[in-house]
Amino acid sequence: MSRFKHYRVRPGAPFRLADIDPTATPFLPEAEHHQREALELLAAELDRWQNLLHAEGRRKLLLVLQGMDTSGKDGTIRWVFSRTSPLGVRVAAFKAPTEEERARDFLWRCHQVVPRAGEIVVWNRSHYEDVLVPVVEGWLDKAELKRRYAQINDFERLLTETGTVIVKCLLHIDKDEQRQRLQARIDDPGKHWKFSLGDLEVRRKWDAYQLAYERAIRATSTAHAPWTVVPANDKTHRNLMIARLLIKVLRDMKISPAPANPAYAGLKVE
Amino acid sequence: MSRFKHYRVRPGAPFRLADIDPTATPFLPEAEHHQREALELLAAELDRWQNLLHAEGRRKLLLVLQGMDTSGKDGTIRWVFSRTSPLGVRVAAFKAPTEEERARDFLWRCHQVVPRAGEIVVWNRSHYEDVLVPVVEGWLDKAELKRRYAQINDFERLLTETGTVIVKCLLHIDKDEQRQRLQARIDDPGKHWKFSLGDLEVRRKWDAYQLAYERAIRATSTAHAPWTVVPANDKTHRNLMIARLLIKVLRDMKISPAPANPAYAGLKVE
Repeated sequence: MSRFKHYRVRPGAPFRLADIDPTATPFLPEAEHHQREALELLAAELDRWQNLLHAEGRRKLLLVLQGMDTSGKDGTIRWVFSRTSPLGVRVAAFKAPTEEERARDFLWRCHQVVPRAGEIVVWNRSHYEDVLVPVVEGWLDKAELKRRYAQINDFERLLTETGTVIVKCLLHIDKDEQRQRLQARIDDPGKHWKFSLGDLEVRRKWDAYQLAYERAIRATSTAHAPWTVVPANDKTHRNLMIARLLIKVLRDMKISPAPANPAYAGLKVE
Repeated sequence: MSRFKHYRVRPGAPFRLADIDPTATPFLPEAEHHQREALELLAAELDRWQNLLHAEGRRKLLLVLQGMDTSGKDGTIRWVFSRTSPLGVRVAAFKAPTEEERARDFLWRCHQVVPRAGEIVVWNRSHYEDVLVPVVEGWLDKAELKRRYAQINDFERLLTETGTVIVKCLLHIDKDEQRQRLQARIDDPGKHWKFSLGDLEVRRKWDAYQLAYERAIRATSTAHAPWTVVPANDKTHRNLMIARLLIKVLRDMKISPAPANPAYAGLKVE
């Protein structure tokens, strides 16, 4: 049985976020000295797959990273893509929407940064913010929320039907782990730039966010774009699991090498 | 004396591209087994500088890569940025302008992909294509070309005056080196996707392109955005020289660490 099975949210199944243990480490090698080595090897392997995807030049890979503050979205990107080239991997970060963005539908800004053929794009936060923040803040009624879930599923179907494979990961940490990580940012003046007082406001709404995540994941884990909940208290485990997931997905894509062009056979450059 | 001096084009000086030997390797360690190690160390050092630039969150670095087909623009990006994170390094590739792009001034599409605060952006080809291709093809008269040079200098001054450090590199190979590299792409069917018959058309105009480069570099190597000619027949030399140049530039920027916020002192997360 695939080690991913327990963490992949089955479409339509009853799903409870509390059933996933944030401290679990099923993808961590037993010997600690093997961990860094394992990550190096996976990062290098991911680079080789990215090159193949680029050479094929036809399909696309979209990695959606969601998670509470300090859950490790930046760290995941740093480590998992530590060996790939910026030629083929691009990050789009979603902040609070600008005035220009709010003047359009919530998927408008996402559509502008979908991967092009042959490319891997990582969304650091995503369109899912629009079914989290407004829900917790009480800005959306139930009917509107339901419409948004359906709009998200339709949008993601458009992308998958046009050659994009979507991998959605929730970086799952517990509340005490967040406390420690926020405290570390406060205690180290060199990390103050990563912190704002607003982070504490959001933390006070922890339970409401967990519930909003649970509902969003339940409503949007589809056959074409399933969610994976990544136990992320252990940073190395988080990185290894996501790297392995991406490699598995790329392998399953059965990428064909770029074809030779018979017109070039025997050509001599002068 | 800095090893870069001979390769940095002095503003207003008489400059002849033929004076720079594409086979020179002043930045190559003598022992071959030290080369890979040197590049690994520089790539890791560049990652540390990129993190500082990101944490400072104020200034920007723009690397412009120009060169004939096969001169190694992609390879440079792959190796020099093999250790940096896609969080802080972005590549913009310039192809033949689209209809939308041709409907605006030639700097319009460039302006859209300038680095944001804290970011390194690499331009794989650039606005310089617009003072090369149309010159070789005879589409521009002298007065218009002169205006474009001035427009480029003005545009680059705007960027530097608003916090962007611009590093412009010509990857300088000789005609025989290009012959071998194009032939290698033809002889390896797995590399056909990198080749098109149009590459041979452009190669036939080699001398005209060299002259157009020489004139463009002479007209646009300014104090605020100087050109460096990188001997690039040797790929490892090319990578080492550009990595060293970027690190030198970043060091000269005297990046200050992000300041602590006194309001956060003693704060306890609950």
